[in-house]
Amino acid sequence: MLAAVNSAPLGIFDSGVGGLTVVKAVQELLPAEDVLYLGDTARLPYGSKSPETIRQFADEDVRFLIAKGVKAIVVACNTATAHALPQLREKYRTPILGVIEPGVTAALADPATERVGIIATRGTIRSHAYQHALALRRTGLIIHGQAAPLLVPLVEENWIEHPATRQVLKAYLDPLVDKGIDTLMLACTHYPILIPVLKDLLPPDVRLVDSATTCAEHLKHELTRLDLLADGDREGKLELHLTDLSEEFETLTRRFLKKSPGRIRRAVLGA
Amino acid sequence: MLAAVNSAPLGIFDSGVGGLTVVKAVQELLPAEDVLYLGDTARLPYGSKSPETIRQFADEDVRFLIAKGVKAIVVACNTATAHALPQLREKYRTPILGVIEPGVTAALADPATERVGIIATRGTIRSHAYQHALALRRTGLIIHGQAAPLLVPLVEENWIEHPATRQVLKAYLDPLVDKGIDTLMLACTHYPILIPVLKDLLPPDVRLVDSATTCAEHLKHELTRLDLLADGDREGKLELHLTDLSEEFETLTRRFLKKSPGRIRRAVLGA
Repeated sequence: MLAAVNSAPLGIFDSGVGGLTVVKAVQELLPAEDVLYLGDTARLPYGSKSPETIRQFADEDVRFLIAKGVKAIVVACNTATAHALPQLREKYRTPILGVIEPGVTAALADPATERVGIIATRGTIRSHAYQHALALRRTGLIIHGQAAPLLVPLVEENWIEHPATRQVLKAYLDPLVDKGIDTLMLACTHYPILIPVLKDLLPPDVRLVDSATTCAEHLKHELTRLDLLADGDREGKLELHLTDLSEEFETLTRRFLKKSPGRIRRAVLGA
Repeated sequence: MLAAVNSAPLGIFDSGVGGLTVVKAVQELLPAEDVLYLGDTARLPYGSKSPETIRQFADEDVRFLIAKGVKAIVVACNTATAHALPQLREKYRTPILGVIEPGVTAALADPATERVGIIATRGTIRSHAYQHALALRRTGLIIHGQAAPLLVPLVEENWIEHPATRQVLKAYLDPLVDKGIDTLMLACTHYPILIPVLKDLLPPDVRLVDSATTCAEHLKHELTRLDLLADGDREGKLELHLTDLSEEFETLTRRFLKKSPGRIRRAVLGA
């Protein structure tokens, strides 16, 4: 018989609605799990802000989810993972997973990986969290981090196919291609939506690694290890909480989740 | 003899550091005034968020400035002016000025003005605050509002001369040019930096109206009317408070102010 805690929801949070790409991957892999999602849309983006501020925001996000009784937490935000994960793990007893380790594991799954490019927000690149995690796992890797701060606004505007987006992408990718990368890590939850354009702009032998899918696989592994999986016979529910509601956020929610989000609740943090 | 209140600082706030274009214009026109600036960099941007959230943030900004003893407040943020100014004026006794009325006055200063284009954040366009203020002041005007949400990120990246910026600007401006506008209102504090590129892309007979200069002139008029001007013999100081500090914000501060900002303080709101 499963303990009561196994039927508790998973908590997943992000600075906005981009983390729903992780939710989508989790629902596909672990359909029996209830998911409680928190998007801090009132204070997004995190990527351009200071580590101190990001840590404070992430701490408030985690406290909100713990108060709701979640059994484990996924930090579905690369910037928050980069700056706040160690501190959060130390402070709280609830298991907390980030998006960086799973991405790094996936990038290095191919033993031929030698030259890794990383695109992310400025905050994530500056933190050197990916570069550090990669370097710890394999010596001799050549790693190039490229801050790509204009991609999130372009994705949120849905300018995926616009020539301006291609021009921006070229400006970010050309230096990486020049350096002969064999792997490109999409180190921001918004970027999976750009995969078709990225494939078009990159040489065909560059492998793309996105954090959403790899994070869901890691979560399944951890829940199994901790004996926290929900009963497989049920169908999980999704509950969405955003700190700011607007038509745009609802539209984006639908785009990232690829289905109707149902009722979205307004969350008040730090109460 | 001037009362003590005349030597109190002016409070100017914005969601970020774009409002420093207003500070610069105020310092040029009213060099004796002390200015206390608050930029809510931890929660920027306001332009993409809901009216309710913008009103809550603006209220916290005003309370911070009033607690610091300012004699008058300028809302140097188009989005906050659009959504929160009436409510703020009703709630507080300190004189509070916005950026919209001065801009509208300047746009209509030319009696030949007939077709007005407005570029701004989505929040400002959605509020219809400019459209409404223009329509109230002159009947028969043809008004076209164009949300231009990608301009702030491009300016903040300093991609002013980048071909991608021209492409984005063309996408926003072409529909306005097609409609034969004679005046273009730059209804966001970030946009004055784009004036050279805008002049290049627009027909030569389109007049540009930016809110920073017109706001400073309106402020001088109001301080004179309320007998609140500082003693003209002194040199005003500038004190900068941001809710989040980072290297990028310091760089932007210098770019908007066109000089070194001196020491920047970290502000804690809602305390």
